[in-house]
Amino acid sequence: MAKINFPRGRERVVIDRILPCVDGGAFPLKRVIGDQIRIEAHLIVEGHERIRAVFRYRKVGEKSWNEMPMHVLGNDEYIIDWQPQEVALWEYDVAAWSDDFENWFDGFGKKAANRDPALNVEVSIGTELAEATLKRSKGDDQKRLQKWVAALRDERRTVEDKTHLMLGGDFARLMRSWPDRQLQSTPSQPFLLLVERPLAAFSTWYEFFPRSFADKAGEHGTFKDAARQLPEVADMGFQVVYLPPIHPIGKVFRKGRNNALQAADDDIGSPWAIGSEEGGHKSLHSQLGDFDDFAVFVNEASRNGLEVAMDIAFQCAPDHPYVKEHPQWFKWRPDGTVQYAENPPKKYQDILPFNFDTEDWQALWLELKSVFNFWIEKGIKIFRVDNPHTKPFPFWRWCIREIKAQHPDVIFLAEAFTRPNRKYWLGKCGFTHGYTYFTWRNTAKEMREYLEELTQSEVKEFFWPNFWPNTPDILHEDLQLGTRATFIGRYVLAATLSSNMGIYGPAYETLDREPFPGKEEYNNNEKYQLKRWDRHCPGSIVEEISRINRIRNSNRCLQRTNNLTFIDTDNEHLLAWIKQDFDRSNQLIIVVNMDWRWSQMGHLDIPLDVLGISPDQSFQVTDLLDPKLPSYTWKGPKNFVKLDPTRLPAHIFQISGF
Amino acid sequence: MAKINFPRGRERVVIDRILPCVDGGAFPLKRVIGDQIRIEAHLIVEGHERIRAVFRYRKVGEKSWNEMPMHVLGNDEYIIDWQPQEVALWEYDVAAWSDDFENWFDGFGKKAANRDPALNVEVSIGTELAEATLKRSKGDDQKRLQKWVAALRDERRTVEDKTHLMLGGDFARLMRSWPDRQLQSTPSQPFLLLVERPLAAFSTWYEFFPRSFADKAGEHGTFKDAARQLPEVADMGFQVVYLPPIHPIGKVFRKGRNNALQAADDDIGSPWAIGSEEGGHKSLHSQLGDFDDFAVFVNEASRNGLEVAMDIAFQCAPDHPYVKEHPQWFKWRPDGTVQYAENPPKKYQDILPFNFDTEDWQALWLELKSVFNFWIEKGIKIFRVDNPHTKPFPFWRWCIREIKAQHPDVIFLAEAFTRPNRKYWLGKCGFTHGYTYFTWRNTAKEMREYLEELTQSEVKEFFWPNFWPNTPDILHEDLQLGTRATFIGRYVLAATLSSNMGIYGPAYETLDREPFPGKEEYNNNEKYQLKRWDRHCPGSIVEEISRINRIRNSNRCLQRTNNLTFIDTDNEHLLAWIKQDFDRSNQLIIVVNMDWRWSQMGHLDIPLDVLGISPDQSFQVTDLLDPKLPSYTWKGPKNFVKLDPTRLPAHIFQISGF
Repeated sequence: MAKINFPRGRERVVIDRILPCVDGGAFPLKRVIGDQIRIEAHLIVEGHERIRAVFRYRKVGEKSWNEMPMHVLGNDEYIIDWQPQEVALWEYDVAAWSDDFENWFDGFGKKAANRDPALNVEVSIGTELAEATLKRSKGDDQKRLQKWVAALRDERRTVEDKTHLMLGGDFARLMRSWPDRQLQSTPSQPFLLLVERPLAAFSTWYEFFPRSFADKAGEHGTFKDAARQLPEVADMGFQVVYLPPIHPIGKVFRKGRNNALQAADDDIGSPWAIGSEEGGHKSLHSQLGDFDDFAVFVNEASRNGLEVAMDIAFQCAPDHPYVKEHPQWFKWRPDGTVQYAENPPKKYQDILPFNFDTEDWQALWLELKSVFNFWIEKGIKIFRVDNPHTKPFPFWRWCIREIKAQHPDVIFLAEAFTRPNRKYWLGKCGFTHGYTYFTWRNTAKEMREYLEELTQSEVKEFFWPNFWPNTPDILHEDLQLGTRATFIGRYVLAATLSSNMGIYGPAYETLDREPFPGKEEYNNNEKYQLKRWDRHCPGSIVEEISRINRIRNSNRCLQRTNNLTFIDTDNEHLLAWIKQDFDRSNQLIIVVNMDWRWSQMGHLDIPLDVLGISPDQSFQVTDLLDPKLPSYTWKGPKNFVKLDPTRLPAHIFQISGF
Repeated sequence: MAKINFPRGRERVVIDRILPCVDGGAFPLKRVIGDQIRIEAHLIVEGHERIRAVFRYRKVGEKSWNEMPMHVLGNDEYIIDWQPQEVALWEYDVAAWSDDFENWFDGFGKKAANRDPALNVEVSIGTELAEATLKRSKGDDQKRLQKWVAALRDERRTVEDKTHLMLGGDFARLMRSWPDRQLQSTPSQPFLLLVERPLAAFSTWYEFFPRSFADKAGEHGTFKDAARQLPEVADMGFQVVYLPPIHPIGKVFRKGRNNALQAADDDIGSPWAIGSEEGGHKSLHSQLGDFDDFAVFVNEASRNGLEVAMDIAFQCAPDHPYVKEHPQWFKWRPDGTVQYAENPPKKYQDILPFNFDTEDWQALWLELKSVFNFWIEKGIKIFRVDNPHTKPFPFWRWCIREIKAQHPDVIFLAEAFTRPNRKYWLGKCGFTHGYTYFTWRNTAKEMREYLEELTQSEVKEFFWPNFWPNTPDILHEDLQLGTRATFIGRYVLAATLSSNMGIYGPAYETLDREPFPGKEEYNNNEKYQLKRWDRHCPGSIVEEISRINRIRNSNRCLQRTNNLTFIDTDNEHLLAWIKQDFDRSNQLIIVVNMDWRWSQMGHLDIPLDVLGISPDQSFQVTDLLDPKLPSYTWKGPKNFVKLDPTRLPAHIFQISGF
């Protein structure tokens, strides 16, 4: 007899799809601890066969599955609500089978009700099923089934008696505990889920250069100096302090002030030019302090309720120890020099990229991963990864999965200002957050379209945005030409459109907006020199930032990103939207006037059904941002707003009283 | 050195997605021969690496790939237009690699233009690349590369000279012919595509029972009698004649007229109760004729431009030879009888389902597949499969793929009136067409929503509808209570909304609408008895059907299903839409008044941009269905229509003169 090449042909149930998932389960879906996930499976079987389906889950690395029975919805759709109980990298899938017992029991019940003359045959079939179940069963159930089989085989009992017994409930319960799952269907590989810790869903980042905070002007600051900033940063309502690289800075081809090709003797260099004879990615820049000083800094941060984020930039200064120790990890040119980074005609002689083409790639990958592990052991759980899109994508997929499997509470922020498909793929690889195009969305229309892409499309399942109004690399024209209202307004946008956000703090709060001529960059950039900052200079927006952060910290609806509904307005400068908690216990209406110079007024067309307010119901709106304003009473969808940027460019309305 | 578990780590290009596809390529995408397919691949690589990408295709079973270079669109998207040249089951995918030559050549060209002082190093790198390419090359190219390497190694030549040579064009062309593809990326398995023959995209089916066409009333008709119908069916504009099963009809538990439990002695039985001592699925019902008669019938059909579609119903009458020959293919009950089909309290003692749970399932699958092959050898290439959703879905996936790989021109119509997910999965399995819910969409709104699901969602890639206003099993209330206009109107709907359609002809053209009391079924159903039909009885709509079929046959835009754009109207009874050829050379506006009793009027709001007509341009509309109407001149989007069902319930407007 010819065999056919279809090994699982007897598995009757087709698993058409399991939702939600990312690319059929190949990449991890992302959720936060505490989230309830509704899993939906489309399970198809022929005819009137009755399916039993279980949802299965386990942590990656575990052998055995946990199971929960799924419930049928109709149209072959099955659901279950699952709330993972641990921050972990999980696997999940569905197992389903056409169930012999259910198939028989359903017809048996109907036939019994109809007093079918052939009921004796059905009783015999049921008895055979009980015998088969007995063989599979164990423990007390086995003893119970033995009694059942004996009773059903007892010729003194009538068919009616046996029917009555079998329909009594106990029999079915027992039989259902030991189903025949030999021919169950499962997907060819399990689906992945990353359950992240709460900080991954909601975080406010403050970036600063520790070396700029020495007591005396002109001196190189240390971790100790930087630690003195922490109470104030915490008071402002931030949760994360993010430090640019703290490794030894290369001396060969060091860049000078404002990225000058030649450094002066006293130039301190860019922290992103990593490595010197002092050490590399696992060493500290000695002018900042030693590992003890660093531990004190991390500890001080923690005492202030702050977590430290480190910068990881996988590139080397020419004097990085790797170049001598692992020459095979670099690309050597025919003239005996190492290939530096370039994008002709631009040359970056101070930066050597790794050569991932090397035959020794496995050792390189392992070493790079060990850099993360080194700092994890030093207590760091947040990494801002510099330019991940200039390293091979398969490396990240492997590296993050390896680290997440061991340390699921590690947060990775991808600093990839690149094309959308590449940014999104990094999200699929497991980067917790990604930098975004927020900075370059400067009209209400652009901002709305972008947020709809991020929060309403499939992107939301794998790419979580982290909004930054500025960074040491980016001073957008909007800020260069902006007013105090621009700085406040863009902070409100970032803080209320994305639950994860951050600023390059000292420059932002003091309204630094002096560009390097003709560029989207700061003049006298702190990347290459020490700066002095006065957080309380005239015009400082420290108070506004603190107020907005307090609003974020006390309104749960701002602690998630995708719970967003835009409100149509009749003025193109006004961007308005609803943020709401899943149970509507916390709802805000936010309106920003994106014309930073002139007053703008207009009407909102509020989708009241989203808020759970009926059109004839009045409700109160109270501005949390501008407590001097009175509460307004609104009714119906159309409501008037006017925003004068010289006062404040935004409303953050709390909704109540309905 | 520890090895890491990531075997393809050095493949730099990530193949993020290839579109179009069905479920990541697991199921075949469907197209028609002659269609051009735009393939899009999202290919991601880090940094400034330059990708080369080829689209690859081959017929299933072939070893080697055909390749076409892909073109970059931006945002890491690559495209190619492919027109498969053969009706076949194809495999396709994409291979892509980061190209060493392109990476170097791009920078080299820029540096040469900038007179970079280190150009000599670049020339050396290019020379090394040429040497590596030489090793891969063959034939004349190898000789040419030998000369190139000699010239580049020639120390008498200057760097400028060599640079000039390398940028001349010939060098790059030669180098590009022998790329280093050792580390190319490909998907883990190829994607599937079914290229169907034209009849799969456009077909008009006519179903009739051959036994009802004897010359004399009361006699059992034969293939010879049925053959006499063929010229008239062809004249009406049909392409497919579909016969209910033509196998021996079971005698045990035979059903009587109107599905009576007890047949009278002279009852002829249902053709779907297959098998008797005369034979089974590979035999002919002797009263219809023998294999010679059948061959004559098939040949006559062909002479008239018609193809014969057979009905395949995988079920057995109790006296089917399989029951004795292969008892293991049936489910035996403890009382020694075979399990018949049932859906308690309904029992179908005349029909035994196959037991796909049998240990002998492979032999069963092979035998069932051989039924198709048997009739394919008899010249049949179209199968209407009865109730495929009551047989295991994995069986169909295997069976259709096996048959399509050998006979890609075979058309399968799934008669599955079941839940959408099951219907759609059968489409994914390779069924060419599926019956639909068309019959139960009885208002303009319902019809529009359903067509949008079929033609605008992902469903269109794998499920092709076949619209049937009636079947021997289904006489909808809309027809039962309908008028002549209902029959014409629903024919227009089927004929112009779906390029594949059919009718149970004799009953439809003669407006048979007598229901079995209380059911959605015909009274005195031809399934159980002979009928006499007079195609030219009073009220017959043969002329209208013929006219509509002629319009279908002469308007290419009606020969595809998805080229559909609905037109908003201000009257809920009016359904209006545009059909258009891909190059707009053939465009129709169709309007149907779905109130079959009363005149309805209203305005269309035509999306003129879809038609390529500007708002200030006038255009002519000419009704092809009602040639007595004058042409109208329309201008702008808003245009008035009025349809009186007592005249005709529809317009099929040809658009011209713009």
